[in-house]
Amino acid sequence: MLPACSKSSERQGETVSEQADALLAHGREVLASQPFSVLVGTELAALSPGRAELRLAIRPDLQQQYGFLHGGVVSYMADNALTYAGGAAMAAPVVTSEYKINYLRPAIGEMLIARAECLSRGRQQAVVRCDVFVLKDGEEKLCAVAQGTIARMGEGS
Amino acid sequence: MLPACSKSSERQGETVSEQADALLAHGREVLASQPFSVLVGTELAALSPGRAELRLAIRPDLQQQYGFLHGGVVSYMADNALTYAGGAAMAAPVVTSEYKINYLRPAIGEMLIARAECLSRGRQQAVVRCDVFVLKDGEEKLCAVAQGTIARMGEGS
Amino acid sequence: MLPACSKSSERQGETVSEQADALLAHGREVLASQPFSVLVGTELAALSPGRAELRLAIRPDLQQQYGFLHGGVVSYMADNALTYAGGAAMAAPVVTSEYKINYLRPAIGEMLIARAECLSRGRQQAVVRCDVFVLKDGEEKLCAVAQGTIARMGEGS
Amino acid sequence: MLPACSKSSERQGETVSEQADALLAHGREVLASQPFSVLVGTELAALSPGRAELRLAIRPDLQQQYGFLHGGVVSYMADNALTYAGGAAMAAPVVTSEYKINYLRPAIGEMLIARAECLSRGRQQAVVRCDVFVLKDGEEKLCAVAQGTIARMGEGS
Repeated sequence: MLPACSKSSERQGETVSEQADALLAHGREVLASQPFSVLVGTELAALSPGRAELRLAIRPDLQQQYGFLHGGVVSYMADNALTYAGGAAMAAPVVTSEYKINYLRPAIGEMLIARAECLSRGRQQAVVRCDVFVLKDGEEKLCAVAQGTIARMGEGS
Repeated sequence: MLPACSKSSERQGETVSEQADALLAHGREVLASQPFSVLVGTELAALSPGRAELRLAIRPDLQQQYGFLHGGVVSYMADNALTYAGGAAMAAPVVTSEYKINYLRPAIGEMLIARAECLSRGRQQAVVRCDVFVLKDGEEKLCAVAQGTIARMGEGS
Repeated sequence: MLPACSKSSERQGETVSEQADALLAHGREVLASQPFSVLVGTELAALSPGRAELRLAIRPDLQQQYGFLHGGVVSYMADNALTYAGGAAMAAPVVTSEYKINYLRPAIGEMLIARAECLSRGRQQAVVRCDVFVLKDGEEKLCAVAQGTIARMGEGS
Repeated sequence: MLPACSKSSERQGETVSEQADALLAHGREVLASQPFSVLVGTELAALSPGRAELRLAIRPDLQQQYGFLHGGVVSYMADNALTYAGGAAMAAPVVTSEYKINYLRPAIGEMLIARAECLSRGRQQAVVRCDVFVLKDGEEKLCAVAQGTIARMGEGS
């Protein structure tokens, strides 16, 4: 519905495609350095300035007592996708400052997909939205929506 | 600052103390039936109508890339504490409908403690707040605050 | 980015266009019966199941001390647009249960425009997003984004 | 439940009481310079570093169609109280960056009272909570709760 945050300019001597590959590769290195993300098995499927997509295979040990993916895992995915989209928009180390999430339906299926998009980018912070889908039998269903603020490291409260 | 949601009445043939023990024991059974809560090692330290306290020992595999507890784990703890406090206030099976969290400082220490308190309880839902503290060298520091809505099962969006 | 909540079925003996006109006319009657909306001069520009657009001419008496439209007016517009979109999706009397708003830039211009879209609709509640734009010199700029829950009357907390 | 943000140090040649009076007087000047606050009749009842109380006499022209105070006015009061408490904690010109509100009951009565308390204060921003009460027949009832981020002017998104 809204354009993502404006793209940063091309770096000298690199094609747009090389820059995109480098950004995704860097994002994957960061994810691999998060022990908790490794524990739950998150993958960074896409990353560009202002946009990110995370994926997570739903496993029994990530569920709650009714057999749904635990809401805390849905929140973690939304939070992390917000951070990636905001960080890629700001081209800086960032942390999530705050966010809000509405759960729409139980996350039952094979895969959780969190897609975040930066709406506004300033010097100190970015405002980002995230849609979280659950993939079941080849169909994606929206299961949570989030909105929050990403802050440049060291500039939080 | 605010009184917790009003207490439910005494059940016949049980002392208040027996009821309190039964509520906590039931809450611990529910937690033990959440595979994700078992995976991260959450403990239910206290539960009464409208109030809950969860604790989690901070482990290296729950951290992010800067050596702090991952924000997703802090969110999960706030979310779960909101659900417990709201569910115990409503005396019914519940789910988190929505919540908002502000991160105040990195969670660095030995233990994360989430204390939630129900502010308002209706037939269909309860509004609950949560303070999340990190315990380091014997001192508790507030590291996140949350506020959200808990809905009776089957009554969500 | 997301489809609005599914449309309600056609009513017997009315064309789709007649129904759309009736919905908008009903929405305008409701707005005219809100003394506060009359005080600030809100207009309902569009209403369909799951979507609403409110407009407000920016007047000096609605500003704060820096000459921007007061944030409270921006919030009121987002809140009201959420309620309209959710109410039209649920085809029932509703109230806002909760919402969250991020202010992106000062609202400076001639007109404030709040566009809301329902993302998910249940029997008891709907989850809705709202984008608030300020119109200045013929150009719309996004100045706030909101997300919240609309509840059927009498089903709140 | 939580201590307010730490107090700023005494200014030379002024007693604590003189400083408190000066802060409240300054806050009232700011409020008087907000045309929208004058329009709805807001009063600043108390202000100290990290704490603020706003009051508003409920008038018919501030209501919605069911005879309750309009939710937008409740939001405005929460937003403004958050800003005052955060601004007084930071001792700087500030704006509300974002907040979330849960409505707990219809605001029916003579007076709306918004009390905000700063929970955490940094160089760039503060995190603040607000409880909104409605006064009816001499009794205060909690009708809304809010939580948000206040940012130093010029440091927003």
